[in-house]
Amino acid sequence: MSKVKRKTKVIYLDNAATTAIYPEVLKTYTDVAVKIMGNPSSLHDLGTVASRMLMASRKQIADLLEKKTSEIYFTSGGTEGDNWLIKGVAFEKKSYGKHIIISAVEHPAVKTSALWLKTQGFEIDLAPVDSNGFVKLDALAALIRPDTILVSVMAVNNEIGAIQPLQGIANLLKNQPKISFHVDAVQAIGKLMPADMLPERVDFATFSAHKFHGPRGVGFVYIKEGKKLQPLLSGGGQEQNQRSTTENVAGIAATAKALRLFLSEMAHKQEKIQAMKSVLMTALEAYSDVVIFSQTENFIPNILTFGIKGVRGEVLVHGFEAHNIYISTTSACSSKAGVASSTLGAMNISPRVATSAVRISLDASNNMAEIEQFLTIFKQLHEKFQKIT
Amino acid sequence: MSKVKRKTKVIYLDNAATTAIYPEVLKTYTDVAVKIMGNPSSLHDLGTVASRMLMASRKQIADLLEKKTSEIYFTSGGTEGDNWLIKGVAFEKKSYGKHIIISAVEHPAVKTSALWLKTQGFEIDLAPVDSNGFVKLDALAALIRPDTILVSVMAVNNEIGAIQPLQGIANLLKNQPKISFHVDAVQAIGKLMPADMLPERVDFATFSAHKFHGPRGVGFVYIKEGKKLQPLLSGGGQEQNQRSTTENVAGIAATAKALRLFLSEMAHKQEKIQAMKSVLMTALEAYSDVVIFSQTENFIPNILTFGIKGVRGEVLVHGFEAHNIYISTTSACSSKAGVASSTLGAMNISPRVATSAVRISLDASNNMAEIEQFLTIFKQLHEKFQKIT
Repeated sequence: MSKVKRKTKVIYLDNAATTAIYPEVLKTYTDVAVKIMGNPSSLHDLGTVASRMLMASRKQIADLLEKKTSEIYFTSGGTEGDNWLIKGVAFEKKSYGKHIIISAVEHPAVKTSALWLKTQGFEIDLAPVDSNGFVKLDALAALIRPDTILVSVMAVNNEIGAIQPLQGIANLLKNQPKISFHVDAVQAIGKLMPADMLPERVDFATFSAHKFHGPRGVGFVYIKEGKKLQPLLSGGGQEQNQRSTTENVAGIAATAKALRLFLSEMAHKQEKIQAMKSVLMTALEAYSDVVIFSQTENFIPNILTFGIKGVRGEVLVHGFEAHNIYISTTSACSSKAGVASSTLGAMNISPRVATSAVRISLDASNNMAEIEQFLTIFKQLHEKFQKIT
Repeated sequence: MSKVKRKTKVIYLDNAATTAIYPEVLKTYTDVAVKIMGNPSSLHDLGTVASRMLMASRKQIADLLEKKTSEIYFTSGGTEGDNWLIKGVAFEKKSYGKHIIISAVEHPAVKTSALWLKTQGFEIDLAPVDSNGFVKLDALAALIRPDTILVSVMAVNNEIGAIQPLQGIANLLKNQPKISFHVDAVQAIGKLMPADMLPERVDFATFSAHKFHGPRGVGFVYIKEGKKLQPLLSGGGQEQNQRSTTENVAGIAATAKALRLFLSEMAHKQEKIQAMKSVLMTALEAYSDVVIFSQTENFIPNILTFGIKGVRGEVLVHGFEAHNIYISTTSACSSKAGVASSTLGAMNISPRVATSAVRISLDASNNMAEIEQFLTIFKQLHEKFQKIT
């Protein structure tokens, strides 16, 4: 809760939680909402115009991901995508087996979907991660059984930014055609190249628009041609009968636009972000009581998770908030619940240390001046905490 | 498909398929999207501001429906709402019984959800309707069994506008506390008074924003206090852990605004719409080969479904389209599939007659001049068809 009125500019370093919609994207939304009001399912030409806009958006997204247009399906966001793909594959394949493997560091949307399936007679195994947060390939291999139907591992961890060894998992599954491979790519888009984010072996993947400056309430999934699953939302038969509901044409057109803008000059943007992370890393490492949870190698530059020993993460979040600087305690979803990061727990970091964690998540819209301001305030807060503790 | 460029004003009489977003609602969307960019789950005050907007929107909707704020949960639309409530209640209550009753004229979102549950071991019975499209209360009563867990009947039928006897069903269920009562109220909002749309006995109800000039991709459900069901979208724990996903705050605020505007002067608007329907009815009834499927008593004034004997509905739709007048073949969802209306089928109308059906769906934004223009064009088309047939 805010205690004082502030006038300084906001420094938003919580881009893994959500991003600000691009102005051009909001304009696309409003233009389409006003000009294309038909229901794409309608027989008349207002429907046809809406249907064409939908198809153009789908093609644009498919092209950007180097996939086929028919492999992209729209959803209401990452949570629906994960729930649909996990539950939809499980129900589709249950006659072949009821064993599912997910990593120990999946987003709650994947984890709770799998746990719900447990109540429906499925068996769930968690593939462990090492102390850096990477899924252990040998441990995952050991979990595979003849009745395994699905492996789900995120491309990039949302809490610390670890890039998971998807190619290694793809290799493990190369001769296992009966096992579906799902990737939650919500935090990976724009940070990994399409081929690294979606290796050929991947059958299903989840994306969310508000993580790349698109509108809230829109997402899409990749479903490899020929791969079957059951719908989560059934009804009017939209999205090739895979995901029913009147299509949010304005939101979908805005999403395609956001993705195009977000992925443009991606290498350049990631370089800029890497430079900011390096400055942050160097400065934070100089404090003897700072623990860094995000490493450099095989971590996206966008996320830097760390903590001050003995200082609870939320205290640091509120300390920065008083200076109009916004960071978070590992993930937005878990922050209000006040629970320690499940990723850090899976890395065998003690709850006492894990509760100190805060996450900085960077975007190309951030700049080095903001990073310097962040570090200036960090120094002040650090001194204050030292006096208290 | 359009064949000629047209310059005349669009006459949109397909408001049951979707409505144009109100300009003020689009403004609310853009204002909130720009000004309130935080993730409501975030600990910092950008999250708090977003969270407050969310709560204010929820309260406004609850007040308009004469329900408690804690009884309103946001969704991505009517299809998600129906899928969630039907499947969520079924899974929650399956230890008490696996029998579900839905009416024979439910929207595909309800019907396919129930049919999917059949693959999970549930038993589904369809309550029949009479020749006017009203659920037969005695037939429904006869279907109730000791293991019935759910009855789902829409408030207003989307294809012909029949108002279902919800109070009668509520009376049937009065002494059946174990049976949940779900109402798809998607087509009823703004047409029935809250107390008629949601009698006290109703436990769950579904709503969709784009049917009342709100944004696409947003809806909400009513869940009576204390009533339990399983989530369809699980994950980060939003919406009191009932429906996870990062909240579409702009879309939700816009929905609350749309509902307030839509429901203002409701009686006056419905009177205006009734006057238009009466003019249409009188004029259409004068044609000896016109069949009217929507009656007057216990039908909403907004929907008028009829057909010209021997003329397929889509031919009429395209005939009007050429004059920039937009109507539909009973429901948008089924129109492209080219299948006859399932509601008319349930009313025992022969497929030959049912395929002639077209639906006019009116809104307060329509006016009598448009109705007169519609009737002028209808006369022309009718003459043309008579020469052909």
